[in-house]
Amino acid sequence: MTPQRPKLCGRELNSRSKYAEVATRTCGLPEAHAGDCDEYPYLGHLAKEAPRVRAKIIRDATMTTGAAWASDDAGPNRILRWVMMLPDKDLLSFNIDMTKLKPGVIAKLRDKAADYDTCMAVARKLTYQAYGMSGAPTCPTDIRSQLEPWFGPINPGMTVCHVCWIKLDFSLFSSAQRGKAEIETAHANPRDHSENNVGFAHRECNIAQGTKTLDEFYEWIEGIIQRKNAARDS
Amino acid sequence: MTPQRPKLCGRELNSRSKYAEVATRTCGLPEAHAGDCDEYPYLGHLAKEAPRVRAKIIRDATMTTGAAWASDDAGPNRILRWVMMLPDKDLLSFNIDMTKLKPGVIAKLRDKAADYDTCMAVARKLTYQAYGMSGAPTCPTDIRSQLEPWFGPINPGMTVCHVCWIKLDFSLFSSAQRGKAEIETAHANPRDHSENNVGFAHRECNIAQGTKTLDEFYEWIEGIIQRKNAARDS
Repeated sequence: MTPQRPKLCGRELNSRSKYAEVATRTCGLPEAHAGDCDEYPYLGHLAKEAPRVRAKIIRDATMTTGAAWASDDAGPNRILRWVMMLPDKDLLSFNIDMTKLKPGVIAKLRDKAADYDTCMAVARKLTYQAYGMSGAPTCPTDIRSQLEPWFGPINPGMTVCHVCWIKLDFSLFSSAQRGKAEIETAHANPRDHSENNVGFAHRECNIAQGTKTLDEFYEWIEGIIQRKNAARDS
Repeated sequence: MTPQRPKLCGRELNSRSKYAEVATRTCGLPEAHAGDCDEYPYLGHLAKEAPRVRAKIIRDATMTTGAAWASDDAGPNRILRWVMMLPDKDLLSFNIDMTKLKPGVIAKLRDKAADYDTCMAVARKLTYQAYGMSGAPTCPTDIRSQLEPWFGPINPGMTVCHVCWIKLDFSLFSSAQRGKAEIETAHANPRDHSENNVGFAHRECNIAQGTKTLDEFYEWIEGIIQRKNAARDS
């Protein structure tokens, strides 16, 4: 993290969303930029090259995770993370009655809450990671100049799975097994959606990590290896 | 596995199930036993002490795993494992049209197939493991004599999670999080339902193992530790 992050334009963008009052969407271009304002200017290139990757980055950065929730009382499947920052009474105006949800679901939704600016920083981080994958489209200079002051140089092949440390290839974004994408957004601490805590991971790695923090996960698997070896040697 | 397994009665039991023609259910008591025949004689004690554990053992031993299958074309949720040994054309008479299922679902169902005798051996093995957990009800002598010739002495506290090698406590059978049982039946090779391949495991361990064999899982987590340490030291 360098301290020389360029100041952003930050101009308020129009929105007709029913959630517009919860958080103001703002322009993510550098201060005093030329041309139109843009919430996700660093995603303009991927919009053409890999539109689904762009959509995934925005979705993962800004929306709570979809879950295969079977019942009506399981809560909303996806909702803007900053909406989940609101107190229960304000959520009622969006037809979300938290008191009707199970404690586990409430905890899950609240864990995934994050304010608008934090989500925008996460979107930037994920974009940086996507361009850092082997096989990624070459990052155009103007986008590079928007991301590198935040996170450092973009070198293709630098992005490894957040959990297993194996290099991620950009082509994994378009592979899916049984309808599930092969790449997911993972959190070192599953209860903290912030730029320093997120990264792309293999789906199976994200599943294996489960609700543990990454530190807990590594400690856990080290214990497994030790117990397995002790059993073998005994 | 000792070679001195007692011969079983094996007398055919009456069944009114529509699947009765697929496999004959047989008596699991020792040859020349007194009293009535019984398919699961070694589960008589748990029927009183922990009926849900008995039901789980029978279910896991004999039925394909339930999955949260959302769509109509996802196939049956649970079906007798030996029914899944039948060729496609015979399954049609049970209203299962395998040609209408997705390849992944077909593979999953077929992977979980096992013949009746193999399932009965698995039920025995799981019962043995349950009695070997810390906190388990004391195994009555008559049941001990039915299980130990197959698997060796039952010592409370001997049963460890099939994946993580931590001792399993019998009380985990009655704990559940978000409606999911804390203990599941795991397979060292997920595509082989047989007595030497099954064991109880923590739900989270079974999930982390995923579709890997246990050997693949251990190799995988050893690789993660190595890469993580290499990254830390570089």
